[in-house]
Amino acid sequence: MGFDLGTELVGMGLRSMSSDHRSVVSINLFVALLCACIVIGHLLEENRWMNESITALAIGLCTGIVILLTTKGKSSHILVFSEDLFFIYLLPPIIFNAGFQVKKKQFFRNFMTIILFGAVGTLISFFVISFGAIEFFRRMEISLDVGDYLAIGAIFSATDSVCTLQILNQDETPLLYSLVFGEGVVNDATSVVLFNALQNFDLVHIDAVIILRFIGNFFYLFLSSTFLGAFTGLLSAYVIKKLYFGRHSTDREVAIMMLMAYLSYMLAELLNLSGILTVFFCGIVMSHYTWHNVTESSRITTKHAFATLSFIAETFLFLYVGMDALDIEKWKFVSSRSWKSIGVSSIILCLVLAEELLLFSHCLFSNLTKSLRVKKLPFRKQVIIWWAGLMRGAVSIALAYNKFTRSGHTQLPGNAIMITSTITVVLFSTVVFGLMTKPLIRLLLPSSQKQLARNLSEPTTPVSLLSSLLEHRPSSLRMLLSKPTHTVHHLWRKFDDSFMRPVFGGRGFVPFVPGSPTERSVHGEE
Amino acid sequence: MGFDLGTELVGMGLRSMSSDHRSVVSINLFVALLCACIVIGHLLEENRWMNESITALAIGLCTGIVILLTTKGKSSHILVFSEDLFFIYLLPPIIFNAGFQVKKKQFFRNFMTIILFGAVGTLISFFVISFGAIEFFRRMEISLDVGDYLAIGAIFSATDSVCTLQILNQDETPLLYSLVFGEGVVNDATSVVLFNALQNFDLVHIDAVIILRFIGNFFYLFLSSTFLGAFTGLLSAYVIKKLYFGRHSTDREVAIMMLMAYLSYMLAELLNLSGILTVFFCGIVMSHYTWHNVTESSRITTKHAFATLSFIAETFLFLYVGMDALDIEKWKFVSSRSWKSIGVSSIILCLVLAEELLLFSHCLFSNLTKSLRVKKLPFRKQVIIWWAGLMRGAVSIALAYNKFTRSGHTQLPGNAIMITSTITVVLFSTVVFGLMTKPLIRLLLPSSQKQLARNLSEPTTPVSLLSSLLEHRPSSLRMLLSKPTHTVHHLWRKFDDSFMRPVFGGRGFVPFVPGSPTERSVHGEE
Repeated sequence: MGFDLGTELVGMGLRSMSSDHRSVVSINLFVALLCACIVIGHLLEENRWMNESITALAIGLCTGIVILLTTKGKSSHILVFSEDLFFIYLLPPIIFNAGFQVKKKQFFRNFMTIILFGAVGTLISFFVISFGAIEFFRRMEISLDVGDYLAIGAIFSATDSVCTLQILNQDETPLLYSLVFGEGVVNDATSVVLFNALQNFDLVHIDAVIILRFIGNFFYLFLSSTFLGAFTGLLSAYVIKKLYFGRHSTDREVAIMMLMAYLSYMLAELLNLSGILTVFFCGIVMSHYTWHNVTESSRITTKHAFATLSFIAETFLFLYVGMDALDIEKWKFVSSRSWKSIGVSSIILCLVLAEELLLFSHCLFSNLTKSLRVKKLPFRKQVIIWWAGLMRGAVSIALAYNKFTRSGHTQLPGNAIMITSTITVVLFSTVVFGLMTKPLIRLLLPSSQKQLARNLSEPTTPVSLLSSLLEHRPSSLRMLLSKPTHTVHHLWRKFDDSFMRPVFGGRGFVPFVPGSPTERSVHGEE
Repeated sequence: MGFDLGTELVGMGLRSMSSDHRSVVSINLFVALLCACIVIGHLLEENRWMNESITALAIGLCTGIVILLTTKGKSSHILVFSEDLFFIYLLPPIIFNAGFQVKKKQFFRNFMTIILFGAVGTLISFFVISFGAIEFFRRMEISLDVGDYLAIGAIFSATDSVCTLQILNQDETPLLYSLVFGEGVVNDATSVVLFNALQNFDLVHIDAVIILRFIGNFFYLFLSSTFLGAFTGLLSAYVIKKLYFGRHSTDREVAIMMLMAYLSYMLAELLNLSGILTVFFCGIVMSHYTWHNVTESSRITTKHAFATLSFIAETFLFLYVGMDALDIEKWKFVSSRSWKSIGVSSIILCLVLAEELLLFSHCLFSNLTKSLRVKKLPFRKQVIIWWAGLMRGAVSIALAYNKFTRSGHTQLPGNAIMITSTITVVLFSTVVFGLMTKPLIRLLLPSSQKQLARNLSEPTTPVSLLSSLLEHRPSSLRMLLSKPTHTVHHLWRKFDDSFMRPVFGGRGFVPFVPGSPTERSVHGEE
């Protein structure tokens, strides 16, 4: 069971500390670039077009070009992109922090909406892209089997809402933020679960039984992942409440919270569940119970430390994708078939746009028919939610690498084309749509409007996006979808107050200190 | 320049996420064990003998035995110990946090003392152990060359004061804490610098020129490392003061501090300097300037986040050493020469004890002759400082692995014996002396005594340990050693107030908020 984590961590192993400095060089370069990204991102804060994702992507691209020139075209990156680095080290802090900082009230009021809209939207994307790919790719004589086509559907149904979220302000538009954000997480989770479920099935002979088993497996993954996350979160709350670490040292509290969160993710991976869903729900439970059981300095520390780790991971990711985009090996492989590669990229982009237009037209249609009743979520905000679904990001790249490479390099020409096409689509959508995000949001939510928006979206009446999208359906369906959420939420509150909080702690059951992660941030920054 | 960090990070690479789970299993196990260490360490807090290092060591040993039994004697660990993991990931947070949390006033008042006593003590250890090893090992017919003997000297002159520091209370005995702690850091730094300097020199033909160049190289490493650390710290202070990140987000401030600190360490490694010294001084400068330039929540966050990271790294380290101690491969190699291995271990242990007795007798002698004047630092406290120098820890193991292994396995019988002997000495000293530390300190500093000690050691008169050790020397030497520190400290304060603080920020030049890392901790925990 022995493997050499240390040597592998730095890749080359500094056997004699003075001889081989390759890994030290690349760590230095990456850390320095991260610092540069933060400083430049800060300086460009007021810029009309740029945001931090695009800054990191641009710096990554520039560095890639410089490395390409200095190594005389041999290599453009100092790290080979691997989905392990992504899924085991970068993704957990990002998703955990997402769950930890989310405004729970808004999130849970719209829980059904978010889950259904996120999951249904992803499934629609999946089918449109899969069948579109089967249709068009076969005409281009690209040899892929059914499993590959379905994988392409899963890969490109994972959207990247980070760009949009960086610009939206959680305090100004809490409802919109929680919808964009919740949909993004559910979307990522659904596509990863879909992707994993596809890998486990024999897709050559598809029949009703296999489809049913597939659907069963999908729901099993969804529910058990959520349960595992909630369980780990509650365990941490219980342990910290019972043992009261803060008596001796705040460090132990913070350490236990960090380690338990990471453990929930790794346990899910170990059990072949969806780590993303698990760590997301672990984050929610931890901010609802555990966070209230620790000392005040631990609260401030965890809130900011988790946000910082997530911020560094995100910046690293975009830097990495930018640098990897110029990987000369992949492009060499493809260069002889460049028309094919361009064709594949265009087809995928068109499919993504077509699928999004489908969703948008639906959204538009529901607005035109019932324009009087849709004050609950203004049309402008629906556009933003839709816009956030346009971009494809690191999850797509990580899944594509997982599917189409073995040992980091592309072997079959079909695979090489898929990798380069994925990178093209991700870069194009992130840069083009990303650059338009800031102006678009400023157009749709001008400052004066923001004040109004805050007043509109703050009230305590439950607002459900799906119900507004379904306004033109019979009202019984609307009732079914909006009422239960309301009732369930009410029942949950009663259950929480009378049973959960006394056991696991939480606000009201430990000395109350203002400034929980679900409240306004402690000092009003961010 | 490409190497696959991600795949190497997890060792096995989860190429297809559902197939190879070895790395996921080991990460799970380690994170779970870390949680167990924290919980058990907390429960044993009141125990008379145990402390957290020994708890982690014991849990590591038990896990090693369990793995050994389940794999039927094939392997006892799930990670091969490598000095890369240690030097690149575990050591930097520990040493940085040490610099960041140290009580600077006490540290700098005794700066000369700490540097001289730490460095001189290490050099004495180095010579005693090196020449002792040459003397005894040659009789035992163990074939090692001069470089190896000197390396053994450097390896075993690195002490491990973590155990003692965990029990001492920085608030109750600030002077003692800063002396033990400063000496520990300087000792580690000196032995690593010595070790590195030895690697660069041809030691077959030793003459005066080589020795002079060696001494020159040693001082060059010392000074340039210190300068690099101070420079990086000041740069971070300047950038944060000028750009005022806090305006938009506290996360950027925290991220910049973390990344710059790590960058200072990695830059030092890149330039073949001593990363330990660099990151230690970077921590000191950051807590003196940078820390005062950030928002209040960033202050609380950095203070606790750095402490937590350091705490996790320390626990991980002891867990790791415990698990690695049972590595069956090494012991198999040695089993046929078991008497030799036992002999070597005993000789090294005796040399360590002899060298420490030498220092102790000196300390005792200086007390007996000038017993009236040594009220400045009571004899009891000198014993504690001496005691902290008895234990050998992870630095020794890391250096031994660096010297005596290639690619993680021992090839020559001489090397195998050295590795097992190092582990034996470290385990023996940590467990035996470590178990005695808590009772010893309680004996020497009883609670009533602690109140007294606080009053004794708090006053602002400069106290120099070395001066008390040198009481029997001519007073001119004492003056030279204690006076300059005082004058230099005074001049520095004037320079700091009139030039440094206006440029780089610091207390008094940004809105003052009580609770700097150099003050009492914010809420009185720890």
